[in-house]
Amino acid sequence: MNTADLGLPVDVPSTALFTDQYELTMLQAALKAGTAERRSVFEVFTRRLPEGRRYGVVAGTGRVLDAVENFRFDPDVLGFLAEREIVDEPTLRWLAGYRFSGDIWGYPEGEVYFPGSPVMRVEGSFAECVLLETVILSILNHDSAIAAAASRMASAAGDRPLIEMGARRTHELAAVAASRAAYVGGFDTTSDLAAGFRYGIPTVGTSAHAFTLLHDRERDAFQAQVDSLGRGTTLLVDTYDVAEAVRTAVEVAGPELGAVRIDSGDLLLVAHRVRQQLDELGARDTKIVVTSDLDEYAIASLAAAPVDAYGVGTQLVTGSGHPTCSMVYKLVARAESADPKAPLLPVAKKSTGGKTSVGGRKWAARRTDAEGVAEAEVVGTGEVPAELVDQQLLVELVKSGEVVAREPLDASRARHAAAKASLPLSATQLSRGEAVLPTEYVQGRSGS
Amino acid sequence: MNTADLGLPVDVPSTALFTDQYELTMLQAALKAGTAERRSVFEVFTRRLPEGRRYGVVAGTGRVLDAVENFRFDPDVLGFLAEREIVDEPTLRWLAGYRFSGDIWGYPEGEVYFPGSPVMRVEGSFAECVLLETVILSILNHDSAIAAAASRMASAAGDRPLIEMGARRTHELAAVAASRAAYVGGFDTTSDLAAGFRYGIPTVGTSAHAFTLLHDRERDAFQAQVDSLGRGTTLLVDTYDVAEAVRTAVEVAGPELGAVRIDSGDLLLVAHRVRQQLDELGARDTKIVVTSDLDEYAIASLAAAPVDAYGVGTQLVTGSGHPTCSMVYKLVARAESADPKAPLLPVAKKSTGGKTSVGGRKWAARRTDAEGVAEAEVVGTGEVPAELVDQQLLVELVKSGEVVAREPLDASRARHAAAKASLPLSATQLSRGEAVLPTEYVQGRSGS
Repeated sequence: MNTADLGLPVDVPSTALFTDQYELTMLQAALKAGTAERRSVFEVFTRRLPEGRRYGVVAGTGRVLDAVENFRFDPDVLGFLAEREIVDEPTLRWLAGYRFSGDIWGYPEGEVYFPGSPVMRVEGSFAECVLLETVILSILNHDSAIAAAASRMASAAGDRPLIEMGARRTHELAAVAASRAAYVGGFDTTSDLAAGFRYGIPTVGTSAHAFTLLHDRERDAFQAQVDSLGRGTTLLVDTYDVAEAVRTAVEVAGPELGAVRIDSGDLLLVAHRVRQQLDELGARDTKIVVTSDLDEYAIASLAAAPVDAYGVGTQLVTGSGHPTCSMVYKLVARAESADPKAPLLPVAKKSTGGKTSVGGRKWAARRTDAEGVAEAEVVGTGEVPAELVDQQLLVELVKSGEVVAREPLDASRARHAAAKASLPLSATQLSRGEAVLPTEYVQGRSGS
Repeated sequence: MNTADLGLPVDVPSTALFTDQYELTMLQAALKAGTAERRSVFEVFTRRLPEGRRYGVVAGTGRVLDAVENFRFDPDVLGFLAEREIVDEPTLRWLAGYRFSGDIWGYPEGEVYFPGSPVMRVEGSFAECVLLETVILSILNHDSAIAAAASRMASAAGDRPLIEMGARRTHELAAVAASRAAYVGGFDTTSDLAAGFRYGIPTVGTSAHAFTLLHDRERDAFQAQVDSLGRGTTLLVDTYDVAEAVRTAVEVAGPELGAVRIDSGDLLLVAHRVRQQLDELGARDTKIVVTSDLDEYAIASLAAAPVDAYGVGTQLVTGSGHPTCSMVYKLVARAESADPKAPLLPVAKKSTGGKTSVGGRKWAARRTDAEGVAEAEVVGTGEVPAELVDQQLLVELVKSGEVVAREPLDASRARHAAAKASLPLSATQLSRGEAVLPTEYVQGRSGS
């Protein structure tokens, strides 16, 4: 059995129902009209970045590949569609044999993107491509939103490690995907065991206030934790009085205490005090971990504080104000007829209310200046200009229905770090701004 | 095999890894210290509502019950924990036999809540209760955020139906839970087939712009859709020119055309024009569905427009500005010793940085005035005052590990409508405001 990459510790045979009903009714109508087999090109892109953001981060690509591979209609699902009369008999028969047989190209995971970047391109018959819209957008819109927030937090944190700990603030499976996306965006570890199990992300975690409250004295709790987890553990020191807790912590664990965690209060002030106290107690190597409603701005504000690691929850898994991207999946070209040799015609909805689309099958390249710094996102139809051939961004992900571009998560993570480093310096400013690269449209010869 | 209610069309044997690592390390340390078996009471509550919101909506309770029932450590999971050395051998053995055997009480699904409302209370040994923190919070924080947004949108929509269509804007499984929570909050239908399959929520959907663009003429697309889906279908009329599309739609389908959908432009203006045009064409019963980045404010602004139904996506599944709640899971009381007869002691973290907790095992009741309108959320420890005994909010959900309070989703949906109706009128104002009920704390005798 194939495994759909939902972040679950079990196999899931099908992703076919993560689909808006209209994909199936469009299929039914197109089958009946004889237009379902017209060769089609769909593209995923955003018209804009979230307000104030300077770049976007492609994440979820690996999950999309699994979702496409496992997009099958098994008897249970077909039975549901039949019983609810969602589609007719001919459509049910067609769905029973569904298996995506087309091609998918896209920005590799971890790459940055800008308004208009064709981050994914899906080609095949209208019928086989239209069905994938919802699940592809679900994955890319969610995962990219989290990765973008993570990337900004990673810039703010500099060399200090970031711990993802937002599982409790979002849907239990969105949390696993969020942890994965955060890792791509630059986080180092996660508290989420399912993310460790599924994706091999290093997991961390020691204790909460409840553990201290369970015991008769804070000292008993610290002693219990050190006895069980060793002196290298992280003790939570803000259940009662921080200064007293730090003193107790070092008494119990000795100067070999791994770290203390502060989860409330004015972190800037408290971190300085705790560092001074730890140093005075001889615990110079004991680290300070802070965790309390942090976002990229709070992380940046602690840059000069003696903090060794940040734990981030809510603001990470909710995309730091932008919990979704506005990626859309649009038909940009389709054949004149069902003849496989029929030429592709560019198509686009008429622009109203800002919903502009550019028709035609697109390529994309990132132009760099003489120093190798990115200076423009160039998106075009037709032939790729010779000077941009080697700077193209789309890579082949699925070829005739077969996934050809799986990679370990560390490769996506490294790609993101490199892509971010190649942007102009203003990319990592936290202040609100415009996209750091302009998107230029080029219409080449034979523009389909 | 039990089925964890993740919104998947398949069985999932375990929810045990949707857990922060520290729950397991706390367990290990408590087992070694001999404190793991101390009887404990954990409560779920929020310290505040999202800014400007007047009430919260409890959603996800049914999913929590499934998650608790399926919280088991199977050999794969235990193998992972062993290999990563996340916990030690005695802890692994303890986990292998894990099955929650305690009691859970909570606000029933669909009920409203306020700051300090003990929306769920989990009682048992520290060991068995602490493990459930992450998954319970994931579910309640996500689902309640969506239900709260849905509830406001339902107030704004009045009698007009609301269609949930946000699947593409959030994680593919968060989308299924969102659809479920939206239904509890007052939505009528969903575009998400998985939500229809899993929860029986009525599904809807007809076509997108891609379907029109696939065909050589808009007329061909409309004809294909009507031929396949019947005259009662909904035609999307804003791919090119709306007025022309409406004319074509009625020519193709006749005045029996079910509905037209408008997905862009100034909806207020366009809806009026389209209504007038439809009436002039004799299609007086043809409905108008609008869908374009709607939120509760946009819905309210269309109250006087000739709109028959609203489709809502992004703003619903992202909680309309508040994608998560700030529910926490806190130890509020625990026994002095592992003796099952040892009395419970109230416990609480010391208040710093606004993180106030009130110790002690709590009851809650909603006091009403002479007209039966709610006037206060009363939360207390110790004995329930006689006049509030019949107005208590917590119900038994799990008894000695057995789920005792499953209910159909329609019951939760009806409960929410009734609870909202019992609040003061200002509850459904969309403008920013304070919680519509004050929370009063009462300390009774024997306050544990």
